[in-house]
Amino acid sequence: MDKIRSLTGMLDHFNDGDSLNPSFKLFEVEKRIKEIFINYKLQEIRTPFLEDVNLFNRSVGNSSDIVNKEIYSFDDRNDKTIALRPEGTASVIRSVIEKKLDQETHKLWYMGPMWRYERPQKGRFRQFHQAGVEVLGIKEGLPELEMISIVCSIINSFNLKNCVVKINHLGTSEIKESFCNALVEYLIPYKKLLDEKDLQRLNKNPLRILDTKNKETQKILKGAPQIKDFLNKQSIDLLNNIKNEFSDICNIEIDYSLVRGLDYYSGFVFEAISSDLGAQDSFLGGGRYDQLCFKLGGKNMPSIGMAIGLERFADLVNLDTPLIKMVSFVILTSNLEPKAYKIAHHLRSLNKKIVLDIHLSSGSLKSRLRRANKDNSDYVIIIGEDELKNNTAVIKPLKDELKDQQTVSLNELYNFYKTL
Amino acid sequence: MDKIRSLTGMLDHFNDGDSLNPSFKLFEVEKRIKEIFINYKLQEIRTPFLEDVNLFNRSVGNSSDIVNKEIYSFDDRNDKTIALRPEGTASVIRSVIEKKLDQETHKLWYMGPMWRYERPQKGRFRQFHQAGVEVLGIKEGLPELEMISIVCSIINSFNLKNCVVKINHLGTSEIKESFCNALVEYLIPYKKLLDEKDLQRLNKNPLRILDTKNKETQKILKGAPQIKDFLNKQSIDLLNNIKNEFSDICNIEIDYSLVRGLDYYSGFVFEAISSDLGAQDSFLGGGRYDQLCFKLGGKNMPSIGMAIGLERFADLVNLDTPLIKMVSFVILTSNLEPKAYKIAHHLRSLNKKIVLDIHLSSGSLKSRLRRANKDNSDYVIIIGEDELKNNTAVIKPLKDELKDQQTVSLNELYNFYKTL
Repeated sequence: MDKIRSLTGMLDHFNDGDSLNPSFKLFEVEKRIKEIFINYKLQEIRTPFLEDVNLFNRSVGNSSDIVNKEIYSFDDRNDKTIALRPEGTASVIRSVIEKKLDQETHKLWYMGPMWRYERPQKGRFRQFHQAGVEVLGIKEGLPELEMISIVCSIINSFNLKNCVVKINHLGTSEIKESFCNALVEYLIPYKKLLDEKDLQRLNKNPLRILDTKNKETQKILKGAPQIKDFLNKQSIDLLNNIKNEFSDICNIEIDYSLVRGLDYYSGFVFEAISSDLGAQDSFLGGGRYDQLCFKLGGKNMPSIGMAIGLERFADLVNLDTPLIKMVSFVILTSNLEPKAYKIAHHLRSLNKKIVLDIHLSSGSLKSRLRRANKDNSDYVIIIGEDELKNNTAVIKPLKDELKDQQTVSLNELYNFYKTL
Repeated sequence: MDKIRSLTGMLDHFNDGDSLNPSFKLFEVEKRIKEIFINYKLQEIRTPFLEDVNLFNRSVGNSSDIVNKEIYSFDDRNDKTIALRPEGTASVIRSVIEKKLDQETHKLWYMGPMWRYERPQKGRFRQFHQAGVEVLGIKEGLPELEMISIVCSIINSFNLKNCVVKINHLGTSEIKESFCNALVEYLIPYKKLLDEKDLQRLNKNPLRILDTKNKETQKILKGAPQIKDFLNKQSIDLLNNIKNEFSDICNIEIDYSLVRGLDYYSGFVFEAISSDLGAQDSFLGGGRYDQLCFKLGGKNMPSIGMAIGLERFADLVNLDTPLIKMVSFVILTSNLEPKAYKIAHHLRSLNKKIVLDIHLSSGSLKSRLRRANKDNSDYVIIIGEDELKNNTAVIKPLKDELKDQQTVSLNELYNFYKTL
């Protein structure tokens, strides 16, 4: 019969416990980042993965790459256009507005899958994972420090080298606008030299030209007006203060050409990059988006957020094999003996820190021991017909060459397991 | 501006830390069930949430409720019919076949959202959550015990009362078929008395009639042939053995009328119900499905699995407010002082067990203390202009009435925090 295959760009993650396996890394990265979020007293929010497509059309903006080509949308049976979420922020804000919580302050985190429809490339999938933080209801100041603090904590908790956290300020929306006008005015005489992509950006979202990969455009930009000449003292001070205070724990760099791919950012923006990632070197980014809530029909709610690309981040980290105490449990009876299994069930209830691997398939003692060794078990507990009859068990240490295996009573087994 | 609303039947989960909040319960249930899975040395598998719709048409069967009305499917831009997964097992088997792992043994778990398109009702959402276990590649025997052991561990870890684990055996596929034939033969004379739903089942999947809610049909069934008269001794023994061995830890009941909603089950089946749930009383179910892998284009791979409806399960549990050591950090300076924030950042690195809540919004000391008390903080650390100048901090205990607040040097603060 025909095999049914997974869909293009949608990966199966299968964690076999091997610390080099990308799925193992992804899950471990998720676990540890979650611990950091909880440590910062962020609260988990989980919005549905499907939304009215208008949410994203309205939030991430018409000129963002996300909406133009990437959004994974479809018409449902009632001809409503539904989107699989391409990012997390818009849904969080939609949710806060819907619950009428947009006049309170919140510190939130989320983690989960996102989708895009573009053709999959190396390291870019149609279903991918992001974790994010949103600090809502508080204007510029401490939330900016908290964001950078979280970024540093994440980078340092995985001992990542070769990372730079770039920071910039796009000013208030008025400042952002006058800078944009000056940039356009400067670029118009060079119009003929721009490639199609940058020309499009010039019309729709000129700031994004600062992000160009085109070498010729980069040359032209050298003489262009700079955002730093438009910013007020307070913004410049914020950047310098952050750089000064956090430089001893993370590599912080002020980069006045840093812009973000989504339209809704203004004010403080940041991005973390790693030279280990190649051309697409960014794995984390964020910034302030004070206008978004109002734009989506809510109150004025000053906000700042960040998101981490988890697959890309997992690519960066090197993990040790986790140290877990493990015991293998081998039943060597010719018939199914629920009494023997029940001993294992009882063991589990005595010590929840131990991973107890009951061998469910049949096989010789030799093959079981081979497997227990391969699994890196500390001990094997063996129950055969004799042990079952005599209410005993055999304990065989696998990591301590000096210790012999021994036959013990069930009570001794329970005491041994309790204190492991 | 118009507000954009969430889609019908798709819930926002917002965890405010209140132990009565359904989202708090859902997340906590997920966390603890995950710990149990890891304890059993199950390995996590995460398949994409979107699949070719044919996977479910072929696996869960044409007569299952899931496929007939519930599946959430749509046509993508290439006119391929895509489904948001309605359950977890089919994707797991598809993945194992695709990775050519269908001749090995596996003990797997998954957890995540599923979708159905039916109109939402109380406690039934369009996006809902399930956790599941699949033990693959091992024929009837120990895997059955492992399933019931996991079910008991889950029920007992939440101290659930009023639960019954029902078990049954549907026989081999031959036995299942001859029982079905006998059942149909018995029911044909009563055809006129059956309602439309049961009549449909009679044609498509007669076993499901045993599950009828229709009182008249239930009366008719009293004289019907019973599966137990078709089963061989080994199957009956298995049921009795499980009942005998596990009865002291969980309420186990042999129920020969127990059938499962999905076509692919044969052999051992089980379901956990709670009288606290009302009419829809089942929150967990599973069984053996030895034919599914072959049916999906793979090898013959004997398999057994189970799934838990997490929203329904969360409804059942009563949780205490978690005991977390928490410290509030209050900065009382008139200007933004990154130096003060930096002290908090340093504290975090000293003791990762403490949740440190930095107050990011402004406010009077009085309002901050009120909030710290409401948040159930153990201590408040206060840094104002004077403390910043003198390299000191104020520590104020909130739970110990006898202890006064004290001003300490930063080094003393760090030592205090380290040993909290």
